[in-house]
Amino acid sequence: MRDRIRAVQFGCGPIGCAVAKLAIQRPNIKLVGAVDIDKSKIGRDLGEVMGMDKKLGIPITDDVDGLLAKTKVDIVFHQTTSSLEMVAPQLTQLLGYGVNIVSTTEELAYPFTTQPKLAAKIDKVAKANKATVLGTGINPGFLMDSWVLFMTAVCQEVKQVKAVRIQDARPRRLPFQKKIGAGCTPEEFQKLVEAGTLRHVGLTESITMIAAGLGWKLDDITESIEPVIAQKRVESQYIVVEPGQASGVRQVGRGLRGSEEVITLEFEASLGTPESYDAIYITGNPNMEVVVKEGTHGDIATAAIVVNAARRVVEAPPGLITMKDLPIVICAP
Amino acid sequence: MRDRIRAVQFGCGPIGCAVAKLAIQRPNIKLVGAVDIDKSKIGRDLGEVMGMDKKLGIPITDDVDGLLAKTKVDIVFHQTTSSLEMVAPQLTQLLGYGVNIVSTTEELAYPFTTQPKLAAKIDKVAKANKATVLGTGINPGFLMDSWVLFMTAVCQEVKQVKAVRIQDARPRRLPFQKKIGAGCTPEEFQKLVEAGTLRHVGLTESITMIAAGLGWKLDDITESIEPVIAQKRVESQYIVVEPGQASGVRQVGRGLRGSEEVITLEFEASLGTPESYDAIYITGNPNMEVVVKEGTHGDIATAAIVVNAARRVVEAPPGLITMKDLPIVICAP
Repeated sequence: MRDRIRAVQFGCGPIGCAVAKLAIQRPNIKLVGAVDIDKSKIGRDLGEVMGMDKKLGIPITDDVDGLLAKTKVDIVFHQTTSSLEMVAPQLTQLLGYGVNIVSTTEELAYPFTTQPKLAAKIDKVAKANKATVLGTGINPGFLMDSWVLFMTAVCQEVKQVKAVRIQDARPRRLPFQKKIGAGCTPEEFQKLVEAGTLRHVGLTESITMIAAGLGWKLDDITESIEPVIAQKRVESQYIVVEPGQASGVRQVGRGLRGSEEVITLEFEASLGTPESYDAIYITGNPNMEVVVKEGTHGDIATAAIVVNAARRVVEAPPGLITMKDLPIVICAP
Repeated sequence: MRDRIRAVQFGCGPIGCAVAKLAIQRPNIKLVGAVDIDKSKIGRDLGEVMGMDKKLGIPITDDVDGLLAKTKVDIVFHQTTSSLEMVAPQLTQLLGYGVNIVSTTEELAYPFTTQPKLAAKIDKVAKANKATVLGTGINPGFLMDSWVLFMTAVCQEVKQVKAVRIQDARPRRLPFQKKIGAGCTPEEFQKLVEAGTLRHVGLTESITMIAAGLGWKLDDITESIEPVIAQKRVESQYIVVEPGQASGVRQVGRGLRGSEEVITLEFEASLGTPESYDAIYITGNPNMEVVVKEGTHGDIATAAIVVNAARRVVEAPPGLITMKDLPIVICAP
């Protein structure tokens, strides 16, 4: 039997806690440390912060150097923020200790086109320290990019691809419902968009991953964002949306060759959408329509793919890798 | 730009010709030779045998040693027969020249459990000659195994998996329609089953690949086969099926842990089935239902996945590999 993977949880917010909760259930993983910069969490036991009724014997620390200097670590589960620029110092610090990383930083899912210098730097530091770093998640990382590429395996030719994710946000966490603008007036929605706080990050990363995979050179990439306006009253456990208010967000990413739209990604999350689903539409030989009925639960799936990717990342060659080139990630405890 | 992949077509029947036809359309592949053992094809130009109205300048030969001794070859597309025991001498001969192989031999898709000695021998010869060999196809190789494993990436836990492939065989080739027993009486169908000529090969290989991927130890694997009996008259371009005759075949493969059926693969191909589709059902956290609407065309998809896999196989480490551990195959000309 292979050795257990020794893991550190970096970032103990809702997603980080979901990752850690799954990791401690897996016989092939041993959680050996936890990191957060939130003063209210430092020094507390991870189990307590996760809302468990028992301690894990893992104190949360903000002293990354102290932790990694004295602990053997194979991989870090990194769940902090979407911005690659913000997390780059965290990643290079970790890589300096030769530890592998699975991060849910959306901009890391495919940064070679959008942030080539930063991507090259991280790749270089990773290789110099014989470590591997992967950006993944349900989206970007799976539904709108690597799954699309995976399905093209059975196509002789691909002319256009479209991926659609429509989700009813009513079963999701309150912070998620707030993040998509549910209950805002159209004006409030617009202000949140302008402030940069209301936006699903990752469409451009998914578009550039698909293009790189299919060998397409794009001439332009666009992203649009608008509120889904409630036609009738809709409510969740937390929020009531009146007619005329935003029930959520709709974003469309487009990749163009010349004037032709060859990649279309439609993301919609709102309270009370009639049907949740994820779908891929390929125009080519053959045409394909593939659907996940009722869609994929974002929080469950994100924690799953991070933990499931651990073995592949530990075994991968050093450097900054993406889901495009990793062997398929499998739920294998 | 990377060098073009120099390929040889081994086996020039319907599937081999479909592979070659796609390969010559791909800018990243150069077809440099063709092999068949059929005396009626030897010496003829591959283009002619493929039914093209032009010659390709590629004469079909049965002299594998002569061809490989004088021609630089990166990969062989190998489309001959389902039986690993029958093709093993072909594979080891090819591997002796250090060429990589993508084969549609169904029993090669995951032979480690079913034929471990033969698998070990091929792996050893491949590694000794720094060559890589992959068994793939639409099924086994994709729909009922690697696609299932791929979708589990977003699951925290998998308890049971089921894959279903239901296809209307009316649009398929006559040999395929005959192979599934369309137009046979139930007695004739049974005789063909007993003779071993009427059987889709690969369910057991897919089951063992899934089990290996998910880390499951199976206690038993079963396969059943029975005719689909026409309730009313149904006809294709080639065959008329009267009520009471077989319109096709239904096979079910089962993987058991103790008495619990944890893997179920249902394969049905018949003339006039009401709805063609491919589907995956995962019982776990979360449950998932994923459907390819109208299903996947077997011949188109098989040629596609063979040719699409070429780059990955050339770049893979030496040995006998499977779709379970290969980076995702992409339609990338």
